[in-house]
Amino acid sequence: MPELLVTSATNPRLKAVAALRRRRVRDQEGLTVVDGYDELALAVDAGVVPRTLLYCPELMLDPDAQSALVERVRGLGATTVRCGRTAFEKVAYREGPDGFLAVVPGAGRRLEDLVLGPDPLVVVVEGLEKPGNLGSVLRSADAAGVAAVVAADPATDWGNPNVVRASKGTVFTVPVASAPLAGVLGWLAGHGIRLVATTPDTATLHTEVDWTGAVAVAVGTEKTGLTPAALAAADERVRIPMAGRVNSLNAGVSAAVVLYEAVRQRGM
Amino acid sequence: MPELLVTSATNPRLKAVAALRRRRVRDQEGLTVVDGYDELALAVDAGVVPRTLLYCPELMLDPDAQSALVERVRGLGATTVRCGRTAFEKVAYREGPDGFLAVVPGAGRRLEDLVLGPDPLVVVVEGLEKPGNLGSVLRSADAAGVAAVVAADPATDWGNPNVVRASKGTVFTVPVASAPLAGVLGWLAGHGIRLVATTPDTATLHTEVDWTGAVAVAVGTEKTGLTPAALAAADERVRIPMAGRVNSLNAGVSAAVVLYEAVRQRGM
Repeated sequence: MPELLVTSATNPRLKAVAALRRRRVRDQEGLTVVDGYDELALAVDAGVVPRTLLYCPELMLDPDAQSALVERVRGLGATTVRCGRTAFEKVAYREGPDGFLAVVPGAGRRLEDLVLGPDPLVVVVEGLEKPGNLGSVLRSADAAGVAAVVAADPATDWGNPNVVRASKGTVFTVPVASAPLAGVLGWLAGHGIRLVATTPDTATLHTEVDWTGAVAVAVGTEKTGLTPAALAAADERVRIPMAGRVNSLNAGVSAAVVLYEAVRQRGM
Repeated sequence: MPELLVTSATNPRLKAVAALRRRRVRDQEGLTVVDGYDELALAVDAGVVPRTLLYCPELMLDPDAQSALVERVRGLGATTVRCGRTAFEKVAYREGPDGFLAVVPGAGRRLEDLVLGPDPLVVVVEGLEKPGNLGSVLRSADAAGVAAVVAADPATDWGNPNVVRASKGTVFTVPVASAPLAGVLGWLAGHGIRLVATTPDTATLHTEVDWTGAVAVAVGTEKTGLTPAALAAADERVRIPMAGRVNSLNAGVSAAVVLYEAVRQRGM
């Protein structure tokens, strides 16, 4: 039997998806939304099991090839809902949606539930407010093969649709957790992980410290950097040398530069 | 005599600024627009002489402190136009404009007009289509102290307001030029600059080549990478190791990772 075509954005299933734009609803339900074919395919590859999939063949870039993902998600037990274009565009988050919008269990676990192998390389992001920056840090962390990204006192949640999108779905491939700074510091100490803070206010270059063993790099916001509490708690402080007139790189780029120095020292 | 307050977006001066949204007009006039206090301050610090400044004290974050930039720009000979909020918001490019919008000579010079010191470190970007990526490459290049960024067959122009903004104004601090690929390759050869291409399809890591001396790193688009012509012309090909599930970093991050390996080897 062909699926019913939903053409109204006031359909209860569509309204439930739209409600997840609000952080309060995401937190209450423990759910988030993945908007986009590439991001959803990556999440499913990483073991994410969607609850609901809204799809719109009319909006797909390549309906013949991409419909396989609809089948795959249905095979995982998700409810799939075929939508008309107007209704779909109303509930989609991004401009120019590509016909895939899935409800999935929220990314992010409790700090104590993170499973670390030996000598983990960890990223700590403190106070990052821009979803785009958090997403960019996640892409860099994914590429560099970090064990976990931990957000201390984050101003945004891992399930924020803009984080999911900017991360290209890596929010589902990299283990992530959030906690207050004190909890993060205690967790690092408990696991014997050295903390290296990035700050412009030190003479030590990021290439001058030892990045082997169990180590975490902490990055702060682009505007104000790490808090005094985080800087004080760090075992070492390093700076990325800056030759130019603009004395900042964005958080994702800073993280990538430091992480790839760690990769160079550790081998990959 | 206090300046006249312009409250209509149909004022000829405001219309002339709005017209620069179109690339054709930018190319014809050899002008571009800087939208934002930080970006304009940086451009002026870098020696840029604005022709016109539209400003709106009502929209400034800190009118008392920031008005000094209006005086400074006026002192450089620019025509300054105080605008009402509604009119200003109509001609501004960004959402949430901060009260500064200046017309400046276009960034970008001819390849043959680039002045290089000894042993230059150069970035070649090929075919980059997203202004945000081009801007991000420029920030990384500025931070790493490169001698020039050269765009081969770019799909966007240096004066694109989104490039100016994403570059945080570094499009005015880093020497930039555009040319067809063949011209870029000829220019590199003429200056004895080795070309190192980034590509996933090689065993050599970016940390395994010599980045000292006169050298250029070439980065392509996120989706398709460098063209076969650029890859074939390169003296060496390197890849950034990727441990994750998403096999790409964006162009700005890739450029930063490679450039900071060059900085490590060259010292700064």
